[in-house]
Amino acid sequence: MASIILKRTGHKIPKDRCAEVVYNSIKVGYRLFDGAGDYGNEKEAGEGVGRALREGIVKREELCEAKAAAKMQLNLWGLDYFDLFLVHFPIALAYVDPKHRYPPEWWGDDRKVNIQNTPFQETWGAMEELVDEGLVKNIGVSNVAGVLLVDMLSYARLEPQVLQVELHPYLTQESLLRLAKTLGIAVTAYSSFGPQSYLELGFKGKVKPLFEQDVVVKVARAHEREPAQVLLRWATQRGIAVIPKTNTANRLLSNLTSTSFDLTEAEIATISALNIDLRLNDPADIDPRLAIFA
Amino acid sequence: MASIILKRTGHKIPKDRCAEVVYNSIKVGYRLFDGAGDYGNEKEAGEGVGRALREGIVKREELCEAKAAAKMQLNLWGLDYFDLFLVHFPIALAYVDPKHRYPPEWWGDDRKVNIQNTPFQETWGAMEELVDEGLVKNIGVSNVAGVLLVDMLSYARLEPQVLQVELHPYLTQESLLRLAKTLGIAVTAYSSFGPQSYLELGFKGKVKPLFEQDVVVKVARAHEREPAQVLLRWATQRGIAVIPKTNTANRLLSNLTSTSFDLTEAEIATISALNIDLRLNDPADIDPRLAIFA
Repeated sequence: MASIILKRTGHKIPKDRCAEVVYNSIKVGYRLFDGAGDYGNEKEAGEGVGRALREGIVKREELCEAKAAAKMQLNLWGLDYFDLFLVHFPIALAYVDPKHRYPPEWWGDDRKVNIQNTPFQETWGAMEELVDEGLVKNIGVSNVAGVLLVDMLSYARLEPQVLQVELHPYLTQESLLRLAKTLGIAVTAYSSFGPQSYLELGFKGKVKPLFEQDVVVKVARAHEREPAQVLLRWATQRGIAVIPKTNTANRLLSNLTSTSFDLTEAEIATISALNIDLRLNDPADIDPRLAIFA
Repeated sequence: MASIILKRTGHKIPKDRCAEVVYNSIKVGYRLFDGAGDYGNEKEAGEGVGRALREGIVKREELCEAKAAAKMQLNLWGLDYFDLFLVHFPIALAYVDPKHRYPPEWWGDDRKVNIQNTPFQETWGAMEELVDEGLVKNIGVSNVAGVLLVDMLSYARLEPQVLQVELHPYLTQESLLRLAKTLGIAVTAYSSFGPQSYLELGFKGKVKPLFEQDVVVKVARAHEREPAQVLLRWATQRGIAVIPKTNTANRLLSNLTSTSFDLTEAEIATISALNIDLRLNDPADIDPRLAIFA
């Protein structure tokens, strides 16, 4: 299923364009939206969805979303249920009332990261209740490493259906993919273009953009495709769902048609060989107590 | 505190030499013993400890051990309490009665890995009870990655005092060390010599033994020391405890005196640059469902 990501206001899809982008993406065939309370644009995204529903471009059953803070977010989106609902990070922070400040991101009012002593088992229990109540159809996790997946399975009444993780040719996640496959958990990749969106955020790493990597460019030319399409196809041919973000109609279409060609096994291997275990989204950079990837 | 490791019969300290090795190691100054139910040599190790206690070479309060399956192991060792008791792996397997078969290693009677649905929170609760009962003085974990440490701290009544992990110049564990330091958890390195003991086990990796790495040999020559001593000093100067294993009296002494010289910061950095994130002890090699390092 084609999907689209609705990242944080300012550096992801901006609020004032979000409804239009969502509407257009449904029009060209997208059916999965990846949002988060953290991004603060659910209302606008919901307007786009609503318009498409009203115009009969798509039926509710054909859409599939993933969001955080379920009831409020359902309300903001103007929907009755979510198809897939993920825990964004296996980290519990002190509650910030959305009426007071939304989205709270990582911060309390004191501008500090206030860790809350909530075992992940409790969080998962709350997720299971959302399914019981019919508010979400499926539940999953994001940014969860192997040892917590293994632990989760010891207490989960409902097993996670999806694991969403950072995954691109600089971070190929071979062993995590193997584990997810063994456990029957579908994997969704975020940051499929690697440093691209982090460069826009001011990421100062010395690594070459994936779009400019010789092997990516070479494979793209061989197939008369865009480097972005090659990166998406590299993921989908490995059995991974992708949620690329874009603001432009052209790229919406380009990303959507990235499954209309096939890379050879050798091409996939060459691209995978770019792996340097480069993790761009690590909460340890925000607070050293949050080193969930250590 | 000087320490010694009592690894599994057959490829670690053999049963028939264990009492003698333990006794000799106490005589030359060792005070910490690292064992595990899995190694099956507690009784012999206990004989060595008992002899040293009887001969007045050391008092019980000066000794410090770490073992699994507490009461039985205390009995086998002939001691009243352990100073430090670790969870060997964050993995729960179906119980095998030690009267039936000991040590069970990873296997059930069916020669399969039988995972048991015990959340790590329950295991940790049992560890805390051992402290309550006075059977162990301190508790800790081994082979636990960052995300589970973070989760543990949300429910631990008694925080882990020690984290024991594979750590050597091919697996420098920078981010895990940073997290442990932030959380105030002491780190103990196992497999300080890297592939050495795994080569003896038939490890077929293409990696060069650390003892033969140019930078290690060069630094050893510069200090007129053994490569093994350089590897241990590299760890201890980074604030990490070590538990090298040996069967020979010479090496016992050589390992023990490895803190009597200092590496320069530059030497430590050069050795650390050997890092290739090579993990030699990964239960995923036994069963793909056990990918706790993915």
